Amino acid sequence: MSRTVKAGILGASGYTGADLVRLAACHPEVELSVLTANSHAGKTMADVFPHLGGLELPRLQKVEDTDWSGLDIVFCGLPHGTTQEIIASLPKSVRVVDMSADFRLRDVETYAQWYGHEHLAPALQQDAVYGLTEHYRDAIANARLVACPGCYPTAALLLLLPLLKGGVISPDRLVIDAKSGVSGAGRGLKQNMLFCEAGEGLSPYGIASHRHTPEIEQELSVAAGRDLAVTFTPHLIPMSRGELLTVYADMSEGGSAKDVRACLTEAYRTEPFVRVAPEATFPATQHVRGSNFCLLGVYEDRVPGRVILVSTLDNLVKGSSGQALQNMNVMFGLAETMGLEQQPLFP
Amino acid sequence: MSRTVKAGILGASGYTGADLVRLAACHPEVELSVLTANSHAGKTMADVFPHLGGLELPRLQKVEDTDWSGLDIVFCGLPHGTTQEIIASLPKSVRVVDMSADFRLRDVETYAQWYGHEHLAPALQQDAVYGLTEHYRDAIANARLVACPGCYPTAALLLLLPLLKGGVISPDRLVIDAKSGVSGAGRGLKQNMLFCEAGEGLSPYGIASHRHTPEIEQELSVAAGRDLAVTFTPHLIPMSRGELLTVYADMSEGGSAKDVRACLTEAYRTEPFVRVAPEATFPATQHVRGSNFCLLGVYEDRVPGRVILVSTLDNLVKGSSGQALQNMNVMFGLAETMGLEQQPLFP
Amino acid sequence: MSRTVKAGILGASGYTGADLVRLAACHPEVELSVLTANSHAGKTMADVFPHLGGLELPRLQKVEDTDWSGLDIVFCGLPHGTTQEIIASLPKSVRVVDMSADFRLRDVETYAQWYGHEHLAPALQQDAVYGLTEHYRDAIANARLVACPGCYPTAALLLLLPLLKGGVISPDRLVIDAKSGVSGAGRGLKQNMLFCEAGEGLSPYGIASHRHTPEIEQELSVAAGRDLAVTFTPHLIPMSRGELLTVYADMSEGGSAKDVRACLTEAYRTEPFVRVAPEATFPATQHVRGSNFCLLGVYEDRVPGRVILVSTLDNLVKGSSGQALQNMNVMFGLAETMGLEQQPLFP
Amino acid sequence: MSRTVKAGILGASGYTGADLVRLAACHPEVELSVLTANSHAGKTMADVFPHLGGLELPRLQKVEDTDWSGLDIVFCGLPHGTTQEIIASLPKSVRVVDMSADFRLRDVETYAQWYGHEHLAPALQQDAVYGLTEHYRDAIANARLVACPGCYPTAALLLLLPLLKGGVISPDRLVIDAKSGVSGAGRGLKQNMLFCEAGEGLSPYGIASHRHTPEIEQELSVAAGRDLAVTFTPHLIPMSRGELLTVYADMSEGGSAKDVRACLTEAYRTEPFVRVAPEATFPATQHVRGSNFCLLGVYEDRVPGRVILVSTLDNLVKGSSGQALQNMNVMFGLAETMGLEQQPLFP
Repeated sequence: MSRTVKAGILGASGYTGADLVRLAACHPEVELSVLTANSHAGKTMADVFPHLGGLELPRLQKVEDTDWSGLDIVFCGLPHGTTQEIIASLPKSVRVVDMSADFRLRDVETYAQWYGHEHLAPALQQDAVYGLTEHYRDAIANARLVACPGCYPTAALLLLLPLLKGGVISPDRLVIDAKSGVSGAGRGLKQNMLFCEAGEGLSPYGIASHRHTPEIEQELSVAAGRDLAVTFTPHLIPMSRGELLTVYADMSEGGSAKDVRACLTEAYRTEPFVRVAPEATFPATQHVRGSNFCLLGVYEDRVPGRVILVSTLDNLVKGSSGQALQNMNVMFGLAETMGLEQQPLFP
Repeated sequence: MSRTVKAGILGASGYTGADLVRLAACHPEVELSVLTANSHAGKTMADVFPHLGGLELPRLQKVEDTDWSGLDIVFCGLPHGTTQEIIASLPKSVRVVDMSADFRLRDVETYAQWYGHEHLAPALQQDAVYGLTEHYRDAIANARLVACPGCYPTAALLLLLPLLKGGVISPDRLVIDAKSGVSGAGRGLKQNMLFCEAGEGLSPYGIASHRHTPEIEQELSVAAGRDLAVTFTPHLIPMSRGELLTVYADMSEGGSAKDVRACLTEAYRTEPFVRVAPEATFPATQHVRGSNFCLLGVYEDRVPGRVILVSTLDNLVKGSSGQALQNMNVMFGLAETMGLEQQPLFP
Repeated sequence: MSRTVKAGILGASGYTGADLVRLAACHPEVELSVLTANSHAGKTMADVFPHLGGLELPRLQKVEDTDWSGLDIVFCGLPHGTTQEIIASLPKSVRVVDMSADFRLRDVETYAQWYGHEHLAPALQQDAVYGLTEHYRDAIANARLVACPGCYPTAALLLLLPLLKGGVISPDRLVIDAKSGVSGAGRGLKQNMLFCEAGEGLSPYGIASHRHTPEIEQELSVAAGRDLAVTFTPHLIPMSRGELLTVYADMSEGGSAKDVRACLTEAYRTEPFVRVAPEATFPATQHVRGSNFCLLGVYEDRVPGRVILVSTLDNLVKGSSGQALQNMNVMFGLAETMGLEQQPLFP
Repeated sequence: MSRTVKAGILGASGYTGADLVRLAACHPEVELSVLTANSHAGKTMADVFPHLGGLELPRLQKVEDTDWSGLDIVFCGLPHGTTQEIIASLPKSVRVVDMSADFRLRDVETYAQWYGHEHLAPALQQDAVYGLTEHYRDAIANARLVACPGCYPTAALLLLLPLLKGGVISPDRLVIDAKSGVSGAGRGLKQNMLFCEAGEGLSPYGIASHRHTPEIEQELSVAAGRDLAVTFTPHLIPMSRGELLTVYADMSEGGSAKDVRACLTEAYRTEPFVRVAPEATFPATQHVRGSNFCLLGVYEDRVPGRVILVSTLDNLVKGSSGQALQNMNVMFGLAETMGLEQQPLFP
């Protein structure tokens, strides 16, 4: 069967790559032509991910053995720091959706500061479009290189960008308390990701030092019209998928939670993937698991002048592979929801 | 948008009903026209299952308030014992796929013995076709009433029917050790289903008395050509979805695990949803979660003459709603995989 | 064997009661003489909690059938609202440690406002001592009625009381983002506590309306020397035991995280159950599971002038039964750690 | 404080070592004088296991730097294959309780066959006593070297030894379907032990090849008075602790489940740690978590002549460290339950 878009996935042996394969398998216009995974070259995808054994897929190969001609798009699911040079070496005819952190920060010095090494493709960085679909749709449509946001930034920005742009909350003193499932850490072997360590318990991590912070601040500063800094604390939760952010904000003088809710509702009125939860309901990661939805909530605090905000999404879908596919749809003029209609898996 | 099949779901507020909605939402030829849930009549589906809040669906109504005209098919997800009379009262023009236990047992006396009350629609029972798609496909195509197998019987029979028909294992002394996630118990309030009770632990239940036993024996007896009894022990596992059966069997005189594997492989060579796992892999519920797949495994025992068999599926999909939709596809001449192409959700 | 303290437990069929039995069984000076559970009267504790089947315990009985003479102490693990009249009816010779919410709020009007009904024993309320052992030790020693703090208040107050008393943080704008395991909701049947609902996901609940809020504010106001209000948001986490609070605070003018840490370290230097985690470590509920420990953490924020604080404990032990037993030790002049030396269960 | 028994733990950085520290900390007659962990030498135990931060413990050191004089006993929690030479090198004055697999198999050729290398201390093997306390108590009392059984063998043998000795079940055709939590795999980094891989699902592993099989067969053969082979299939369950075995057996001619139950009840009538569950209850791992108990169950099958048996314990306690401490008590003439009175942690 001939399909419109010939796609490759670099780093198909990670969770992000596997989830993109899962979604692409149901996309009527995507043909997966290339899958790379250097440490598993020669294996089938089913060797590495038995749950994908029902699909016919190309065999895993090395990046350096890959013939890029004929590809329309490449998705990169490689670890940050390894992506910049590879992407710089791709033929110009191939469009790129990068799911790593390598092209998210516009300022290469900020990149160097947070990632511990110089940016390796600063020229390319200039062309990168930040891939938060709902807010950069037009630029994405015409981009060659789209840098998909991190999972936490996606959840934070979908919630806060309209509120700062609309001036209903203050850009100062924002507190973002984030909770994430374990899949956010990837498939690498780390002791604290073992079932016995991460199970039946929770803990904060990366307090005041998580690399998604500058990305959140970069975009919020644009929306606020001036530089700002946020307090951001992630926590590791004993579940595989999903993340939820609880955000504490000061409302603008004279504002109310009702105004805040109205602003968000209006901002996403026609969006297929972003919804504001009814007032009486609290968003839960269970409500979005496995889907491309982001669910938002707005609640009045008892402390006058403050509002409590919630944002939840599946870190591997809307927070990564799903948003990547959504961006591809935009780039190729396809219906934006194509291949992303799967509803959440509950229970 | 006009679709081919107008469908109703009776008992849409259970896990089975919700999972059918999830799948039907991605089925290009199904229009969900009626959803009933007597205790939630008047509510939206999103009130009862917030994860389905992204769909446009008819409001929940009472069975007795339902206008059946115009419906092509009704799926019943009601508790056993309540279904027989309701189905008997439906117009003959509506075809029925029953996901309850009410029409699975051909012998109404066996039904009475295991379910504790007389069968309430014995005439209708005569017309019911047992809905194990891979083995009753032709009869299902022409049936008015299809009785979908229980989740355990689906897993057990897909594994064992070809082996008994092929004569490669003995019908005697079969031991079925079954493990299931908690969703099999439904959404009702039971103390042993609380997170704190069912979490971080496991236990057997219903030893030698589970109601899926006679259903398994009914079908295995047909395949074996004579009555047989099985040892069947289910266990409750701290996970939401999925079940896995480990079966201990004597091979036929002179047989080998290789023969057993060959028999299964041949039986399902062209089936889209049943696969035999490669010899070096062990099936896991993680490999089928959220999908309509059933994964089988065959392993030689150290004890001569014995073979260890494995069968796994998602109890809410292939074990219930997915198989129901698969049967609907067969009944309406649609491609059998339509709406069921979702790949497993892992992790 | 004769032991010093004859004890009864009212409401022994809840998780709190069961955990108290677990701990008391290893306490060398406690004899459990009475266990009540009105809905299970006549049963053994092992009927209701099979994990306690290895102990010899009195049979469960009704409160109204209980002979209080000979008892030195009664622990109350009844639901709030039912405790006030029962405690008022006990002989004066029996000392009482109440684990419900009924006597925690000094102001009976605040009680009425948050709990929806008048206080039923306002006179008795005057005598109640707030049972946060580390901060009310002397009063507890001489009290007849000790009102043990809620689990969230215990974690919040152990963290914040020394900091407000020491003047190192500001009493304004405190944000308490709390995460709790499911056992905090008790053993009652609620749909959202089912394994399939609470598992593999998380959500906030009771935003800006949780009943532990006035209790936290009551004690923090005393420490701050003036009324204050806190932002408090609890979340339900897919684990059975444990809770962790992440607190965002403004430091006092010119203060540093180092000062804050020093203040906490000094406050608990000689306490057996409260520890400040080393700077490089993040407290986790896994570090305290099943034990009477509370673990605190202090981290500098990137936003100048702010500090991020963490407090974690086992909600059923230090947050309830363990603290109750600790108070009993204080009341009867026993070593404060007696019966509470069990180390955390990890993994 | 001076205590009777000066103990060392070799391999204190594994789960088994840590659990032994947890238990020993509450043992009134044990002083932990030496803790080794070669890869963590120089660190504190709290660096490696923060949950033990409340204890005063010796610093971790290398085996080769250890002064054995003054030690009464050494517990070995090293990986199998590494233990034999280390134990052979210890001074004769030090008694040894080995928790590894190195001395469990009496026949060094069976050892070589299952573990893939020659036994490195065959002479010492002759002196080793199999440490299943309830069945080898007298020999253990006088042993210098006790080889503690594996977790699965402990559960299997406590269940089956009395039944074979009593002749109430047949030694042929025993099927042991075993389910274990993830901690059985230790703290090493393996992909299939990651939270995202082992969570929310289950699978068999090591079918017909698990190394606990020969150990089970060795002891069952002794009890049966002749060689036998068992069918043994372990499964990995998404929980940290606990294991449960479901065993399918033929009863002896004319026997009944009642006889089987009576035999077990009588065998363990006076044992403090082994209990037969009441007929109406099913043993669950939740009933023994964190404790030294083993809980057994006996149920009549529907298939005539067969019985379904259940055995459950905490793999890290009765299946390892707890049993090791119980053996130490026996070896040093202490009360057998000393330090092991902790009740199960539930929920």
